[in-house]
Parts: sequence; structure tokens; C-alpha cells
Amino acid sequence: MEPQNDIARDAVLVQSEAVPEGTPVVQGYDYNNGIDYQKLLETYRYSGFQATSFGCAVEEIRKMIESRESPLPEEFTPDSEDEFIKIRNNCTIFLGYTSNMVSCGVRETIRFLVEHHLVDCLVTTAGGVEEDLIKCLAPTYLGDWYLKGKELRMKGLNRIGNLIVPNDNYCKFEDWVTPLLDKMLEEQQSKGIVWSPSKIIARLGEEIGDPSCIAYWAAKNKIPIFSPALTDGSLGDMMYFHSIKNPGLIVDINSDLRRLNQFAKKSLNTGMVIVGGGIIKHHICNANLMRNGANFSVFLNTASEWDGSDSGARPDEAVSWGKIKMDSTPVKIYGEASFVFPLLVGETFAKHYHRKKTAQ
Amino acid sequence: MEPQNDIARDAVLVQSEAVPEGTPVVQGYDYNNGIDYQKLLETYRYSGFQATSFGCAVEEIRKMIESRESPLPEEFTPDSEDEFIKIRNNCTIFLGYTSNMVSCGVRETIRFLVEHHLVDCLVTTAGGVEEDLIKCLAPTYLGDWYLKGKELRMKGLNRIGNLIVPNDNYCKFEDWVTPLLDKMLEEQQSKGIVWSPSKIIARLGEEIGDPSCIAYWAAKNKIPIFSPALTDGSLGDMMYFHSIKNPGLIVDINSDLRRLNQFAKKSLNTGMVIVGGGIIKHHICNANLMRNGANFSVFLNTASEWDGSDSGARPDEAVSWGKIKMDSTPVKIYGEASFVFPLLVGETFAKHYHRKKTAQ
Amino acid sequence: MEPQNDIARDAVLVQSEAVPEGTPVVQGYDYNNGIDYQKLLETYRYSGFQATSFGCAVEEIRKMIESRESPLPEEFTPDSEDEFIKIRNNCTIFLGYTSNMVSCGVRETIRFLVEHHLVDCLVTTAGGVEEDLIKCLAPTYLGDWYLKGKELRMKGLNRIGNLIVPNDNYCKFEDWVTPLLDKMLEEQQSKGIVWSPSKIIARLGEEIGDPSCIAYWAAKNKIPIFSPALTDGSLGDMMYFHSIKNPGLIVDINSDLRRLNQFAKKSLNTGMVIVGGGIIKHHICNANLMRNGANFSVFLNTASEWDGSDSGARPDEAVSWGKIKMDSTPVKIYGEASFVFPLLVGETFAKHYHRKKTAQ
Amino acid sequence: MEPQNDIARDAVLVQSEAVPEGTPVVQGYDYNNGIDYQKLLETYRYSGFQATSFGCAVEEIRKMIESRESPLPEEFTPDSEDEFIKIRNNCTIFLGYTSNMVSCGVRETIRFLVEHHLVDCLVTTAGGVEEDLIKCLAPTYLGDWYLKGKELRMKGLNRIGNLIVPNDNYCKFEDWVTPLLDKMLEEQQSKGIVWSPSKIIARLGEEIGDPSCIAYWAAKNKIPIFSPALTDGSLGDMMYFHSIKNPGLIVDINSDLRRLNQFAKKSLNTGMVIVGGGIIKHHICNANLMRNGANFSVFLNTASEWDGSDSGARPDEAVSWGKIKMDSTPVKIYGEASFVFPLLVGETFAKHYHRKKTAQ
Repeated sequence: MEPQNDIARDAVLVQSEAVPEGTPVVQGYDYNNGIDYQKLLETYRYSGFQATSFGCAVEEIRKMIESRESPLPEEFTPDSEDEFIKIRNNCTIFLGYTSNMVSCGVRETIRFLVEHHLVDCLVTTAGGVEEDLIKCLAPTYLGDWYLKGKELRMKGLNRIGNLIVPNDNYCKFEDWVTPLLDKMLEEQQSKGIVWSPSKIIARLGEEIGDPSCIAYWAAKNKIPIFSPALTDGSLGDMMYFHSIKNPGLIVDINSDLRRLNQFAKKSLNTGMVIVGGGIIKHHICNANLMRNGANFSVFLNTASEWDGSDSGARPDEAVSWGKIKMDSTPVKIYGEASFVFPLLVGETFAKHYHRKKTAQ
Repeated sequence: MEPQNDIARDAVLVQSEAVPEGTPVVQGYDYNNGIDYQKLLETYRYSGFQATSFGCAVEEIRKMIESRESPLPEEFTPDSEDEFIKIRNNCTIFLGYTSNMVSCGVRETIRFLVEHHLVDCLVTTAGGVEEDLIKCLAPTYLGDWYLKGKELRMKGLNRIGNLIVPNDNYCKFEDWVTPLLDKMLEEQQSKGIVWSPSKIIARLGEEIGDPSCIAYWAAKNKIPIFSPALTDGSLGDMMYFHSIKNPGLIVDINSDLRRLNQFAKKSLNTGMVIVGGGIIKHHICNANLMRNGANFSVFLNTASEWDGSDSGARPDEAVSWGKIKMDSTPVKIYGEASFVFPLLVGETFAKHYHRKKTAQ
Repeated sequence: MEPQNDIARDAVLVQSEAVPEGTPVVQGYDYNNGIDYQKLLETYRYSGFQATSFGCAVEEIRKMIESRESPLPEEFTPDSEDEFIKIRNNCTIFLGYTSNMVSCGVRETIRFLVEHHLVDCLVTTAGGVEEDLIKCLAPTYLGDWYLKGKELRMKGLNRIGNLIVPNDNYCKFEDWVTPLLDKMLEEQQSKGIVWSPSKIIARLGEEIGDPSCIAYWAAKNKIPIFSPALTDGSLGDMMYFHSIKNPGLIVDINSDLRRLNQFAKKSLNTGMVIVGGGIIKHHICNANLMRNGANFSVFLNTASEWDGSDSGARPDEAVSWGKIKMDSTPVKIYGEASFVFPLLVGETFAKHYHRKKTAQ
Repeated sequence: MEPQNDIARDAVLVQSEAVPEGTPVVQGYDYNNGIDYQKLLETYRYSGFQATSFGCAVEEIRKMIESRESPLPEEFTPDSEDEFIKIRNNCTIFLGYTSNMVSCGVRETIRFLVEHHLVDCLVTTAGGVEEDLIKCLAPTYLGDWYLKGKELRMKGLNRIGNLIVPNDNYCKFEDWVTPLLDKMLEEQQSKGIVWSPSKIIARLGEEIGDPSCIAYWAAKNKIPIFSPALTDGSLGDMMYFHSIKNPGLIVDINSDLRRLNQFAKKSLNTGMVIVGGGIIKHHICNANLMRNGANFSVFLNTASEWDGSDSGARPDEAVSWGKIKMDSTPVKIYGEASFVFPLLVGETFAKHYHRKKTAQ
């Protein structure tokens, strides 16, 4: 034994302090107990890595729901004449999602949340609006990530990841939406209506008349859908063609901003559930700055922080901006939402809904 | 020697066909030849992985520039009365960038491109507009990724990745921008101007009077800056406060869409250089659908395709949509732009500019 | 209406060919049907993005299991005297996993697979071996991603992502393993045993005597665990200290390679389930080259291909090398395994096990 | 003006504390100053995001080099009889790299570092060893990420990302290496040599006789190359075939571990430059635990921490384990190494080498 070895032994065999009492032990689910996914998902809280993040997100959303279910203060009288942003409960839940969530099967999960008025305000991209409507006209198909773009274009088939949307779907969309744009322009001119993205979306939701549609239920339940860059997609293409034949429709984003910010500001408490990055994430967080931060926050996306993007920013960055309350317990799940989000809703909103329904 | 071994030997020692003649050999730079970064970057084309992507992007941008420098067709007469979208050369180059590019030192690179009119159309987010203006009022600082959000908030310091923007910067911005919003509202009311994001940005660029500013040069050089969700940021905060004191300013995104689409459609050729994901990527690509695809395309971002996001979509997905021409040679670089983009500009636009200047 | 518009309309409103008959429509789970996670997971196959990848992986693993359950050919006689690599069924399933899978709660899932002999060959890293053993001596705790390294070191607490392993656990490991290393060296010297990583691991599995342990069941069920760089971790630290006091223990990786390759080559069919990247992924694939490719393959990891790493390489890259059969249907799930893997096992191996058990 | 607005204004217009004096301002390079990449790369330190990480890594490596150039303590006498791990200067620099770094053009950069003895110890994977040798026999070609695996396999062309290695290269490798394996086995039997990966690699480096080769220079300059899982690749395939014809070659990893750990422990100071993840990252860090942490550390890879992998772990995780010194200033660059690493070497080792050479 050489004495020099002590350096190495001392480094490797450092003594530990005891971990704080009550520190949870890592333990996974034991399939010897049968296939019980509810129990499996409950063990995730103590399984480490993103399983633990999932477990924490479940807890955070349950806190949102509990706050939302709490009675409004007795003295409270909602003051808005705008039915869509009138405070109807103790916690306003904002749900943000990108277009791909509607292209894939997460649409049905979001529709469920909106149908049963489990969330209060939606923020999405133009694609998040139009793909929802278009699916009422014609389906989206499964494809493959590596189909060749050129061959697809020659067949008029558009690819979104491993999905295929036939271009005819957009032709059908034009047939459906153009007369509505005519009407909206007419109402602008005759009644002085200033159209904004959220008003246009509510109108389209009223017109679509299809209960598979998020916008249908949002209109019915007076849940606003904000989408500040509503022109950035197929709906924009249609507006553009419309503007050439029938110019003049104004789409004002300033009045929508005021609606959204007022909604956040007047809310008694707020929760944010943000699925994806980009504008939908920033827009919800920014609205929550108007009330010095959201009370409850869950982010779910695949982006990392190291490129300095807002998409990848951790909740703690939003704390520095006053968009999330300093003493709250925000959670980010790093994961792909087509897989994670339906399970997250299952353990939170859906469970709450079905329990309540059964209890009635 | 056991006979069964043949299976393994046959599999491992499969004979190859010859690679096609002229297939380049992988070879890196030899530092025995001294430190010559221009030569190093030239070898990247044959170094593999993202070094090769960088080399291909350099080639693609050089093609854009060459096309842009080519004479306009003799019979060509630009027909637009809108100076910002008048066709002034043979290839319209669209540059998209997210907010973080302006927060970090890439702002100086973008400003260079705009100052010398090396690109023709910008698309950015609200943050991409306001951070550029705010930097004329007060600086952004280096910080660290792991500064605690709560402590920062208590000090009024906002974190963007490893950067810090003191909140006072936004107070200064309010002081500067609010009187301009008053004026714009006044002009709306008195002159019937319909303000759109690109018009507001051009006006702010005119007013800022600071040659370190992208918007300053854009206004001067009549390069439009599109930002369909212009309300989604500090500028929105200011518009919101303004709307409470002095309501009525309309920010129309439909007229901007028409401007952008017309610009793309009337262009003789187009190139896209898109740094980052989200709305700026989709918006430029969508505009190029109006001409059945861009001729030249370079994407630079950190996103991967597997979540079905538009941010992560490879150029070949855009080909399926008709946003990129079927027989073009689009390039995606997977990389972090604060590091990659200045070098990419160095090997393309800046080199072109300095060569031309020297030649004069 | 301007004629020029036709370019844009023609591009936007391209007609589609019909999608091939039978192309599945994208459709998500409807929570109006209650919370039924088995049904939810079944809809994933048609939900798009990674939900679809999960669904395809379930199908691929079910094919492995079906092949494994198929009777051995009548004329088949396993010829190996080595009990660990004797062919015992019609499809050999290789399971690879990195160290973090054992540190987190996925350990229990892997242990289940090994306990019930649902897989045939394990490949892991040194950490994947030692963390499994150490958890029999003392627990791993939940921590947080942003605990400060310096403070932890001063307390002797080691961080693995959001987990904490007290350093005392490694001290206990030394106490346990050092006498065993003495014995192994003695057996090398007295009996001429050439120790290899898989033999050492089997011995440790025999000695640990704890049914919560993967290695315990692997030893019991004669499932080999390969770990070519077994010295790269705490076990290596202990071997190093041991080598100073009691030098001479040889750990031969060449005999293990032969064992592994023979196992792959003699297998009638093979399936690969590889959770994570790095050496465990390459090592299993490389062994399957010895039989001109695996029949069934599932990769699950978070890595992307753009850095040219083997970790991020798609299955199709392995096809080019002959490591996966040309006409097979390999699947990669991009996702974080602590969340995804237990669910994947639930829908495949665990369901199979419990069905069979119930049927008995 | 409504009073309620104050909540929003107070939140948005929070006052800031002054940033600490001397906090650097974010500022990018100005191409109006011409194309000067050295200056550009110097500005990166203050450009934010990964440009700043690059700048910090340059500083960290310059500290390594400065420490390495410092005179050895007067009383110091290196005690090792093993020429490869004898302490020859004041700071031992460990360079780790994965196989893909050798497949791509980074090989030339690494070879430069080894040729001029600018680093002291290499750790790589089996592929990192064999691809270096094979490139002396036949070239690697540029290909494309989306070439079909099946078509490639039918042509005997292996894909690595966007590179192609004809399978004939491996046949040539077998022809070259098999007689050497015969010799090594013969020496084992006749002289009692216990072969370990590092000894085998040194031997192959001696035999290859090609100054384009990393292993050639490593052998010449007595720089050890460690590769604990040396059997995991083509070299393993050849050893496997060899073992069938001519069994018995022992490849001992325990003696290599001791060599590596002794080297780290006896070093006066150490620096780590680790390009990529997996075993090479862990192995260097683990060796540095033997001296209670590296003094200087730079990681360069594309992995993120959220999957709990060692590959993605930030340097601060290694601090908790005692693998990096508590008061050091380790740096991680998130980036793709084919692009980043040659530039990093340019600003550090190569600049140092050429300055010194010029000064002579």
C-alpha cells in the first residue's frame, strides 16, 4: 500500500452528512403488482428525472383545479360586460398549445378540456385554430417522417412530422371560410365592428357547428381563444385571397391584447398550462405579468435553455420577469406532448371531471 | 475454425460497390498550416456533420447573393407604389430572427446586413423589435444561466438565458414610446391611417435616430420589418397601458399579411435565411408559398423534428407544402446561432460586401 | 382581382391525389369515455408524433415476444456448454440500458423483466451494474437539478440529475465488494479463472442475495449482463484500490466479446430493446451484425442524429451497417425513459406476463 | 384611467437595482470593421448564449495551457517507470473524444494536438481508435443523412450521419490487423505480456507508420490512449474472428484503469477537454476524482441534462462528485463539435503552438 493512495481514497470515500429527514427515496413501480397505470403514474413522482417532473406537474395542476373550485370571495362581483373575459371562478386557467397539438391526436384532449369548461382561456397559433376547423371538413392522416417532400408536393400532400394533410383539405377550408370573411367584412362596414383574432375565432367556432371542434365548444362556453398572429397560416392565405377580391377587412391585435391582459389582471388567481413554445408560451406568461405573476405554472415542451430562446427558458427565468410568482412552485416537463399531455390530463382534469360527475 | 462463423464473417466483411466518382473525401483543416480561419471554414464543407451543413449553407447563401446581384430582366418594371415592397433586385432575401438574436450580440450582425441593404425583408417577433430599440436606450448585460429568479425579481433584473436586462430599460422604453403611440393614434383618427405592425416598426425606426439600431436602418433603407404578433412583448405592454389612458389605436395584421405576400409573390426569385423557429420561420415560409416556393433556403436553429413542431421541421417538410421549390437545395444547420450566425454572415454577406467595396 | 394572383392561388390550392386506401386517420383518445389508460395507450398508435412511435414500438416488441414464444425448431439442439448463452427459445431479446435507468425508478421495471426471464441478455454500463448493487445497501434519494455542486460536495452528497446518492453508499459498497475481489483474485491465481466483466457481474449477483436486485435475478436465471467497460465507475474505483493492496486481478474483455457475439450469432431470431445511447447501444447492435442484423429493434432515447453520434443515429443507419435486418420494421422513440419505458413495458412484456400467468 | 391598472403598471415597471459595477455589456462584432475572425471570436465572450460559453472555454483552456507551461516544482521527480504516464509537466491535459470526431474532419485537429504533444492523455471509444487507423488504409466519404439504409447495405456502404464508409475499408483493416493480433497473442504466450487496451493501441500506433494518424503520434510521443471498451467496434470484430482461429488473447482493462488513475493522481494539476458524451466523459472525470477533482474543465457536446444522463450532466454535477474542483471555473459549450472544436483549438492550443514556434 502506497501512502500516496490516500489522496484518492479520501476523495472517493468522502463521508456524507445525513440527507434531510423526510427526503423521499427513489422507487419505481413494481409490475409484480399487476398492470395498474394509475398506480404507475403515481409512483412517477418518486421515480426521478422527467417521471418526477410529471408527478410534480400533476400536483401543480391539481392545485390549480383546487383553487379554481374554491368559492369566489363573497364580496366579488365580476365587472366585465365582455362575457368571454368575465371572471367566473376563483382561478383562471390559461391553456396554450401550438399547432401540432391540434394536428395530432392531442386535439381530442384539448377539446375535452374546453367542452367541459375545465380551462378558461386558450392561446394558440394560427395553425392551432385552422387545423381544428379543417379537421371538421376532412381528416388528417398518418404518414412517415421520411416521405420525400418533392414526391409529396407532386401529389398535393402536405407533411407535418409523421402526419399527412391532403391539400384538398385547404381547398375545402377556403370554400367554407371565404363566405364568412365576406360577412365579417360586411359587418365591419355596416356595424363598425372591429374584428380581432379572438372575435374572428369565436365567430368561426359558432359557425362550424361540429362538437368534435375545440373552437365550437370555446364559442359555446364563452372561452376566448387568443391568437395574435392569426394571419400566419392557412387562414391568412384565405384572408389574403379574400383581400384581393374584397379588400378592407381589418384584424386588430391591440384590442385582443387588452382583452387578454384585462382577463389576467382581474383574475383572482391564475394557472398556466403551456404545451409547446414560441408565441403561445410568451403570450400567456406576458399576460400574467399584468398581475405580477401566475400562481400555478406548468410548461411541457422539448426545448432546452441553452440557445437563450424563450421556448427553452425554464420557469425560473419567468420568475425573474414577474411572470410567475416568486413563491410559487412552477414545473417544467421536458417531453413530447403527443405522448405526455393526454396522460397529464388524465391524472388531473379528466380525473377531476369524472370524480365530480360520479359524485353527482 | 467453426463453419458457423461464416455468417458473421459474411455479414462483417460484405464487399462494397465503389462510391460514385467524384464523391468528396472527408478531410479536416490542418493547423500545421497556421491559423487561417477563412481556410478552416472552407474545409468545413468537407468535414462532415454540421461543419458540412455550414459549408452547404455558405454555398446556398452565395447563390442567393449571386442571384440578387444579377441584373433585373430588361422588361421589368416594379409596379408597387409601396416603397418597402417594391422589387429592387433580382432576388428578394428574407431574413427571419427571434428575439434572443437581438438580445445577444447577433444584433450587430443583423444591423450590418440591414445597414448595407444586403437583405430585403425582415420578419421577427415583438421582442426582436423592442429589444433592438431598447438597446438604444440602455444596455443589456452578461449574467449567468443559474442566477435565481426570485433574487433577480427582487432586484428588478430580468434574465434571458445568460443575459440580464434591468427592468429600468423597460421604464425608459415606456417614456420613449408612449408619446409616439399618442401621435400614431392621433394620425389614425385625423388622417385615417390604418396602422399595421410593419408600419409601426418603420415609424419607430424613423424616430429612434440611432445608427446602432436595426430598425433605424430598415426605415432608412425601406426594408420592411414584419412582426404579426407585435403586441406580444414589452411594446404590447406599452400599448396596453396606452390603451387604458388613450384608447382606440388599431393594429391591423391583415394589411401586413397582404404586403408580405405581395412582396413574395412579385419577387423574381427569393431566398430565405431563418435564424430560430416559431412564428418567424413559419411566416417567411408561408409567404413563399405564394410564389410556389423559395428558390434558396437556409434554416439555422437547435430544434429537432421529432415533436412535429414547425420549428424543428426540416426544409424537406416545407418542400411538401410548396414553400420551398422542389428542385432547390435548401440547407438546415443544427446549431446555436450566437455562435454560428456571425461566422455564416462572415463567409457570405460580409465577404461579398467587403469585396465589392474594395473593388470600387 | 388581379391576374397575378393566380400564381399564389395555384400554389396554395394545389389539388391532391387521394391518399392510399387504408391510410389511418389521426385520432386521439376521448376522455368522455372515462379514464382508461390502456385504451388511451392503444389510441397512441394513431395519434401522431412520438405517440405513434410508442404505438409502433409496442407492436415491434409484441412481435419480439411472439417470436420468442414460438416453439424452437424440432431439430434444434443448443450446443453451448455456457449456460448463460445457451439458446433457450426462438428469439433472443437483448435489453440495453444506461446507468441512469438504474439510478431512477426504471430499475424496478428492469428487475421485473429479468426476474421473470422476459429478456435474454443485458448490456449496461459500469454504473448500470454498481448502482443496482449499491441500492441493495442504501437508498438513492430525490433531490433537485439545481442544488449547488460545491455545497453538495461539502456534504458528501452526489447528484445525478434530480437524484442524490450519499457518498456513504459508495463506502458501504467498498466494504461489501472488496472481500469479493480478494476471492476472485484468489480464484484466478488458484484455479486459473480468467475473469471477464460478465463473469464478475454474475458473481456479484450471486453474492448480493437481494431479490430487489437486477443482478441477483440475472445470476439466478442465467441471463448474462455484459458491460465491457466495467472499470469505468465505482466498481472500478474499488478495483483500483484493491489493485494497490492486492494487485493482479485481470478483467478480460475479449472473452466477453466472444460470449456476446456467439450468443447473437447462434440465436434463431433476435430482438433489441435499447434504452439510452453510448456504448450499450453500439454494443448490442454490433453483436447483431454477427448475424447480419437483428430481426426486431426498438431504440428509446433523447438524442438526435445531427451531431453524427451513434447515440443519436436512427435505426436506418444501423440497417446500412447490417446491424438491423433490411426488411425489418425498427422503431425509435424519442423520449425520456423514466417516463416512457415503464409504460412501454406495461403494454408489452408485463401485459404478456400477466396474461400468461392468469391463463395458467 | 382605472385605478386597478396600478397592479399591472407596478408589475411591469418595477425599478431595478444597479447591476454590479464592471458587469460586462453584451456587444457583438461589427462587420464594418472588416472580416477578422480572430476579433470576431474574441467578441464572442461578450455576445451571450453559447458564444459566451465559447469565450469562457477559450479562457479555461488558456488557463490549462498556462499551468502546463509553468515550470515543474524544483523538488519534483517523476517516479513512474511507465513512460506513458510519467509526469512531464505541471498540468496534465486529458482529451476525450467520441468515434464520430475521428470519422469527421476533427480528426486532423486532434492529430495536430497529439503530434505537437499539446495534450497528455487521450480517452476515446473503440471507434475512435479504429476509424483513425482505417483512414490510413482508405478514405471516408461525404454522403447524406437521408440515404436509405437498405440501399446502402446492398452496396456495402456504411453510413455515419452524413458520412459514408465503404465496407471494404473494414476488410482492409482486417488484413492489416489480424497478423498483429497473432503477434500480440504470441507475445502474451511467450513473454507473459498482459495486453490492455492502451497497450494494444500503442502497438497499433507504432505499426501504422502514417503521420496522418493520431495513434501514430500518440505512440511516438508516449501519450497514452485509453479505451476501456476497446472490443466494442470493428477492432472487436477482428478480435472475435481472430479468437475463433487463434484463441486466447487476453485484453485486461484492470491494468489500464490503474494506469489512468495513477496518471491523474500523480499529476500536479489537471485539465479536461471532453468532446462528446458517454464513456469518454465519465472515464476522464472518474479518473480526476482520484485527485479530488480536475483543476480546469471544458465539456463540449449536444446533450442536455434533463434525462439524467451523464452525457448531458453539467460540470456542476461533476463538482458534487469531487470530479471537478469546487472552486474551479468549468465550462460547458452546448454545440456540435465538428463546427465548434476546430475553432476552439484555433483560439487556444493552435494559437499557443504557433506563437511559441514563431518566438523561437
